Amino acid sequence: MLYPALIKHFSSCRKVAVEEKMNGYNVRVALIKGEIVVMTRGGFICPYTTEKAKDLINRDLFRDHPDLVLCGEMVGPDSPYVPKTFYNIGSLDFFVFDVREKNSGNPMPVNERRRLMDEYGIKSVHLFGEFDVSEAHTSIIDIIKSFGDTLREGVVIKDPAMLLPAVKYTSSLSNCQDLRYAFEFYNDFGRDFFFGRVCREAFQSVEWDEDEESARKRCQKLGESILLPMISTIKKIKAGEQIAENVQIRVKNLNTVSEFEEYLRLLGVDAVFEIPEKIGDEYLVRIKKIHQSTNDKTQTILGGQMWS
Amino acid sequence: MLYPALIKHFSSCRKVAVEEKMNGYNVRVALIKGEIVVMTRGGFICPYTTEKAKDLINRDLFRDHPDLVLCGEMVGPDSPYVPKTFYNIGSLDFFVFDVREKNSGNPMPVNERRRLMDEYGIKSVHLFGEFDVSEAHTSIIDIIKSFGDTLREGVVIKDPAMLLPAVKYTSSLSNCQDLRYAFEFYNDFGRDFFFGRVCREAFQSVEWDEDEESARKRCQKLGESILLPMISTIKKIKAGEQIAENVQIRVKNLNTVSEFEEYLRLLGVDAVFEIPEKIGDEYLVRIKKIHQSTNDKTQTILGGQMWS
Repeated sequence: MLYPALIKHFSSCRKVAVEEKMNGYNVRVALIKGEIVVMTRGGFICPYTTEKAKDLINRDLFRDHPDLVLCGEMVGPDSPYVPKTFYNIGSLDFFVFDVREKNSGNPMPVNERRRLMDEYGIKSVHLFGEFDVSEAHTSIIDIIKSFGDTLREGVVIKDPAMLLPAVKYTSSLSNCQDLRYAFEFYNDFGRDFFFGRVCREAFQSVEWDEDEESARKRCQKLGESILLPMISTIKKIKAGEQIAENVQIRVKNLNTVSEFEEYLRLLGVDAVFEIPEKIGDEYLVRIKKIHQSTNDKTQTILGGQMWS
Repeated sequence: MLYPALIKHFSSCRKVAVEEKMNGYNVRVALIKGEIVVMTRGGFICPYTTEKAKDLINRDLFRDHPDLVLCGEMVGPDSPYVPKTFYNIGSLDFFVFDVREKNSGNPMPVNERRRLMDEYGIKSVHLFGEFDVSEAHTSIIDIIKSFGDTLREGVVIKDPAMLLPAVKYTSSLSNCQDLRYAFEFYNDFGRDFFFGRVCREAFQSVEWDEDEESARKRCQKLGESILLPMISTIKKIKAGEQIAENVQIRVKNLNTVSEFEEYLRLLGVDAVFEIPEKIGDEYLVRIKKIHQSTNDKTQTILGGQMWS
C-alpha cells in the first residue's frame, strides 16, 4: 500500500528523503536553564539518559543554538527501555532524526539538519537517499528487503523541507520482534501491541504479492512470534520463576542510579536494582523490570482460575 | 490447567457430567401467551428461529410443563448466524443443554433434564458420561483429542445437580476456526476475538506438555488462522469485490422472511436478501451479511491511507 500512500501523502513534494528508523527509545534533548536535559516520551526528564547525553552531545551546539531541540533515538545495550545489541554499539548511542525550534516547534529541513549535526560531530540516523515520490516505493521495498535477517526496524519517509508529517514503514522481522516482546509479557502488552502489527503483516503480504509458500512462512513466523514467548513465560512461571525483563544501565555517577530508581518508581514501573558493578571508570547496574500483570494472570490460571 | 480448575471449581461435587459444546447459536425457548417463542442472545425474539422451533419442538412439553425454558443450540447449515455443515444436519436442528424454571431460573439436574427431553422426543446435546472430579481431566482431554480433525467444538463440564456454574473446554481446532472467521472480517471482529483465544492456545500447549515440533505446528496453525483469511479478504477487496458473509435460511412461510429482514435491520445488521427459491414445500433464501467496517478499512488502506 506504499505506492498509493506516498502519492497521496506527498502530493505537494517532488522528492522524499528516506532515513532509517532505529530501534531504541525516542528522546528530545534541549538546554533548560543552562543544562542539557533529556525528555522521554510523555515529557518526563530521565536522569539516566540525561547523564548519557551530556557525554554524547557536543555542548557547543547549544552554546551556538540554545533554542534547538534535538529529537533522536537512544540505541544500544545499556538501555533501560529498549535494549538492543544488534547495532554493535558499546553502551548507548544517540542518533538525531529531527531538529526543531524550541517554542514554535518549527522543524529544520532534512539536509540542513544533517549538515548542522555533522558540524558538531553529533550522529544522525542513516540517510538512504532522496527519491522521486513516484518511484520511492520500489527503492524503499529494496531497502527493507536488504535488511534481510538483521533486526533493523524500517524507514521513515520525509518531505525534505519537513513541511509534511513523516511516514513510517517497518520490516516484518521487526514487527514480529515487537510481538515476541509483547507476548512474553502478554497480559501487560499483548492486547495493545497485537492488532495493528498483525494487520500490517496481512497487508504487506498482499502488497508484495506473495505466493502461497511465502505467505505460509509469514504465518509460521507470526504464529511463533505470538505463541512461543507466551509458552515460555507460562512454563517459567509454572516452574516457580518470576517473569522479568532484564535491562541494564551504565553510569559514571552513582547518584544517577538512585535518581533513576526514584524516576522509575514515579512512573509506576516495578523494578529491582542489583548492586552496581564497577567496570573501568563506570558502574554497570542490572535491573529487573517486573511485569506484574503477566505474573499474576499466569499464576491464577495455573492455579485453576477460569480465563475471563 | 484443566485439573486444578476442575478441582477448584467442583470442590463440592463428587462427579461431573460432560456434555458436548456444539457450534451453533444459543437460544432460549419458552411459551409466551400460549405461543412458542425463541429468544437469541440479548433476549430478542427471532422470527426465523421461532418458525423453525415450532416444527422442531413437541408442543406437548409446554402443555404439560408451561413454566419451563429450554436452553439449547440451533445447529446446521440453514443458520443465519453460525452456519455449519459438519454435523450432517439437513436444515437446522435443536439440541437442549439446559432446562430452567421460568421465573426463578432454577435449573433441572442433568439426568432429569435429559430424561424429560427423551420423553417428549426432543434432542439433547451428546452426553459423554459422568466422571469423578479428580479423574475427569484425563477423560476430557481424550474426548477433545478424539475429535481429531472434525470441527466439533468442545465440551461443557457440569455439576450433575446443576448447583454450580458449568465450565467450558474447547478444542484448538475450533479455537482456530473462530479466529479464521474473525479475521476474514478483521476490522469487525478481529480485536474482540483475538486475545482470549490466543492465550488459550498458549496455555493448552503447556498443559499438554507439547514438544517443540507440536508447538511449532500449533504456531503455524495459529498464524494461518489469523493471516490467511485477512490476506484473502484484502485480495478480494483489491479485486473490487465486496466482503460478505453468505448465509441462508429455509422457511415454510414467506412472511417469516420479511419479518426476519425487519428483525436484522432492527439489530443493525447490514444484509441483502436474495429472491426466495422454492424447494419442495419450503423457500430457501440466501442472505449476504455485509461487514462494512472491514470493507471500508481495507479500501482506505488500499487507497493509501495510513494505518491508525
